[in-house]
Amino acid sequence: MDAIRPRRTRRRNSPPLAAPQIITGAKRLIPTYDLASEDRLDLIEARSDQLLKEIGVRFVDDPEALRLFHDAGADVQGERVRFEPGHLRQILRASALPSFTQHARNPARSIQIGGDNVVFGPGYGMPFVRDLDNGRRYGTIRDFENLIKLTYMSPWLHHSSGTICEPTDLPVNKRHLDMVYAHLTCSDKPFMGSVTAPERARDSIAMARIAFGASFVDQNCVIMANINMNSPLVFDHAMSSAIRIYAEANQCPVIVPFVLGGATAPVSMTAAVTQAYSEVLVGSALGQLARPGSPVIFGNFVTTVDLKSGSPTFGTPEAALGSYVAGQLGRRIGLPLRCSGAFSASKLPDAQSMMESVTALQAAVMSGANFVLQSAGWLEGALTMSYEKLVMDADYLGSLHIFLKGLPFDDEAFAMDAFGEVGPGGHFFGCGHTMRHYQDAFYDAVLSDKQNFETWSDRGSQDMVQRANQKWKRDLEQYEAPILDPAVNDELLSFMAKRKEDLPDTWH
Amino acid sequence: MDAIRPRRTRRRNSPPLAAPQIITGAKRLIPTYDLASEDRLDLIEARSDQLLKEIGVRFVDDPEALRLFHDAGADVQGERVRFEPGHLRQILRASALPSFTQHARNPARSIQIGGDNVVFGPGYGMPFVRDLDNGRRYGTIRDFENLIKLTYMSPWLHHSSGTICEPTDLPVNKRHLDMVYAHLTCSDKPFMGSVTAPERARDSIAMARIAFGASFVDQNCVIMANINMNSPLVFDHAMSSAIRIYAEANQCPVIVPFVLGGATAPVSMTAAVTQAYSEVLVGSALGQLARPGSPVIFGNFVTTVDLKSGSPTFGTPEAALGSYVAGQLGRRIGLPLRCSGAFSASKLPDAQSMMESVTALQAAVMSGANFVLQSAGWLEGALTMSYEKLVMDADYLGSLHIFLKGLPFDDEAFAMDAFGEVGPGGHFFGCGHTMRHYQDAFYDAVLSDKQNFETWSDRGSQDMVQRANQKWKRDLEQYEAPILDPAVNDELLSFMAKRKEDLPDTWH
Repeated sequence: MDAIRPRRTRRRNSPPLAAPQIITGAKRLIPTYDLASEDRLDLIEARSDQLLKEIGVRFVDDPEALRLFHDAGADVQGERVRFEPGHLRQILRASALPSFTQHARNPARSIQIGGDNVVFGPGYGMPFVRDLDNGRRYGTIRDFENLIKLTYMSPWLHHSSGTICEPTDLPVNKRHLDMVYAHLTCSDKPFMGSVTAPERARDSIAMARIAFGASFVDQNCVIMANINMNSPLVFDHAMSSAIRIYAEANQCPVIVPFVLGGATAPVSMTAAVTQAYSEVLVGSALGQLARPGSPVIFGNFVTTVDLKSGSPTFGTPEAALGSYVAGQLGRRIGLPLRCSGAFSASKLPDAQSMMESVTALQAAVMSGANFVLQSAGWLEGALTMSYEKLVMDADYLGSLHIFLKGLPFDDEAFAMDAFGEVGPGGHFFGCGHTMRHYQDAFYDAVLSDKQNFETWSDRGSQDMVQRANQKWKRDLEQYEAPILDPAVNDELLSFMAKRKEDLPDTWH
Repeated sequence: MDAIRPRRTRRRNSPPLAAPQIITGAKRLIPTYDLASEDRLDLIEARSDQLLKEIGVRFVDDPEALRLFHDAGADVQGERVRFEPGHLRQILRASALPSFTQHARNPARSIQIGGDNVVFGPGYGMPFVRDLDNGRRYGTIRDFENLIKLTYMSPWLHHSSGTICEPTDLPVNKRHLDMVYAHLTCSDKPFMGSVTAPERARDSIAMARIAFGASFVDQNCVIMANINMNSPLVFDHAMSSAIRIYAEANQCPVIVPFVLGGATAPVSMTAAVTQAYSEVLVGSALGQLARPGSPVIFGNFVTTVDLKSGSPTFGTPEAALGSYVAGQLGRRIGLPLRCSGAFSASKLPDAQSMMESVTALQAAVMSGANFVLQSAGWLEGALTMSYEKLVMDADYLGSLHIFLKGLPFDDEAFAMDAFGEVGPGGHFFGCGHTMRHYQDAFYDAVLSDKQNFETWSDRGSQDMVQRANQKWKRDLEQYEAPILDPAVNDELLSFMAKRKEDLPDTWH
């Protein structure tokens, strides 16, 4: 199966000159952080079993999903589906993949999902964009393209995410075509398709077939779908059908509850995690029933609300605790795991935003996430994608690559020769061991100021956001589109033209 | 021994009206993060043994320290001291305390050091201060007092640290008197004394004796001392004599190497941690030889330098890895552990500063630190203490109190009644379980914006630093000094006057 390659790659001869560095993921060589003991995880599983048997979940207007669960032996009454203890875990263990490859348009950028791989992708779903020059405004297709280009330029973002911002200048029922086209033309990294209506999911897959070849797509994952539940315990028609459509096409739904403790879940994080776990079991099992052995990612999204205002809050200590436990539960199931992100409620890429994002990203990587969607650009609880924060978060993700590698413990790492050479009171700047290693000893966070005060002042006393503003502009100036076979491009354009002709514009 | 109380407390009848909330530490109920396996820790101990035997450490101009080590059986040649494998661990295990109380002037604010207690104190040693209104400038005694007052006002800072900024408007050889006096009058939290010269250490202890009573001080820890080594592998005269002087008085030195990978230590974090561990073993053992059973804290300070400029860097992934392993080594020894802090190299309290500080603070609490000095206010690699960052970091420390508590797993935490009440598709805002818990369900980060965009805009579109600026000014306005026995105050003032008369002013 691996011998079949995407179409456009077979026709391409050499990468473009400005192709950014190829890094297809971080490797986690350090242990995960196990917050809860095994017997407490047992307790959560038992409470989840109780919840799924006594309350169950509702599928809105999706008889096919109800039929699949009924045929699998679940208790279906009206739109409500209830499960015997352990039934969903049994379905998942029977056919779900512990790891798989998501193929990129450029095979060198294909990613491994699962095992000790950690893949980062930027934010998803923001209606607004913000930058230092123009402030906050509705996103457009031009913003969408810019943000995909910036993601392409960062070595630390291995995946382009999907709706990196909403292109609100395009009709609601047609913008998915332009988004998938932008993913396929502005970048050659892996990406996500549309889920907001069944025909948009089908269009996304159809465009992937044009780019990768239909038979390749039937046998390989080339496109993902971000599935957000209507927590608590509801799958609306668009989401459950998107799970089925992507799974039937052998493509990967990422099953993500929308668990806000105090609003869409109880105020207790223990209960919120139990709910999230239950919801993901159901969604993941639906994918397996639609096509056994199709790829699926076990997601989690657990956070809190401000109980005074009802607004979602992010990067909170409660959310971090929830994410660690959700990660443990996901690892128990043995499916690839999506956790947390660069979450923040702040309106600006300020100190609050990085305080929250770093707290959430630490929880993501320490809890063993394989796929960290939403890992760059987040502001305002996913209402706003920030150009500056995108590159700031990406720079931090680079540091997490180093963190995840841990430390070596061989003789060279102990540098006993350096101590002999330097002795008490000396310094290590020029010693042999330092000279052997200085070039790649430490991660170079390009947006972090490391100058002395005088040099920093002379150069304009900039804060991180100002440096980030210069960085993304420089990146866009230096950007060159990856090569795309003109025949594929023509086919994509004519598919889009035809679909746009078929549909009347809708704007909400 | 515990029946003896500090003098001034016995005379005080009631706390002042504005006395801030009393929280004497966070409790760590979650597991530590163990990055390195036990056999790798064995390897570090073995390499440290080799380093201490083959290279050893140098004590500059301190014959008394050399005599103590010689008498204990170490190999002393000139100023160099070398140790047989395991010798230092043996000294520590024989008499060092696994935990102890540092008594505060207000007994209700006394802190437990060791076990599952986590105590936070602000930054130490900054020559500059910065605030949003007046920018960066040399610290003065007025700044010192303000910063101690702000520390007093925060429930999340349990310890006042020591030189919270340098009062550079006072003579170098006298400012320690004013600093200790400010600690004793502007606050009633535990604090640190001077270490920069033997007579300043003695003056600090003498003033503590006035406040607490001489016999109480002889039997109880009431003052700490922050001991920074001249890494690599050197103790200068001031530091080694300060260790001895504090230990002889039964007070607590905190032994902290100054390990900058690439400068004062090898570029390999594995080697840097091995060096730091070795240095702390020596310093801690010196305290035990000076007075067996005196309190001591096993410190670590491991970070990196920017190899292009030579400037120290903070909150880096390499430093976090080093801190985790240093914490494991410290926990092995079984002494109270000091780790990391709110480290940052940024010049401003911006996104970079919180990105770095949160990374370092996560490593501190996850590595099992009992005492997190330097946990608030840090900028510019400890050159600058920021008024705004002090309150920003303190707010984050509050969230760590919640994080460290972990999650409950009792029936109430699983909220099964809430699921029954709300069902699929409902919301949990007003359900019975939420009503029972909403008041203390989530940490309220007072400096974090949680409003919607419109409200935030209407209220001036402030970033976190602007909110912090208002917060510290409001805190200073509301500040009321804790009660101090006038007789003690008089005695402190006359001691200071006498000492100042005795000494000619020096300015460097």
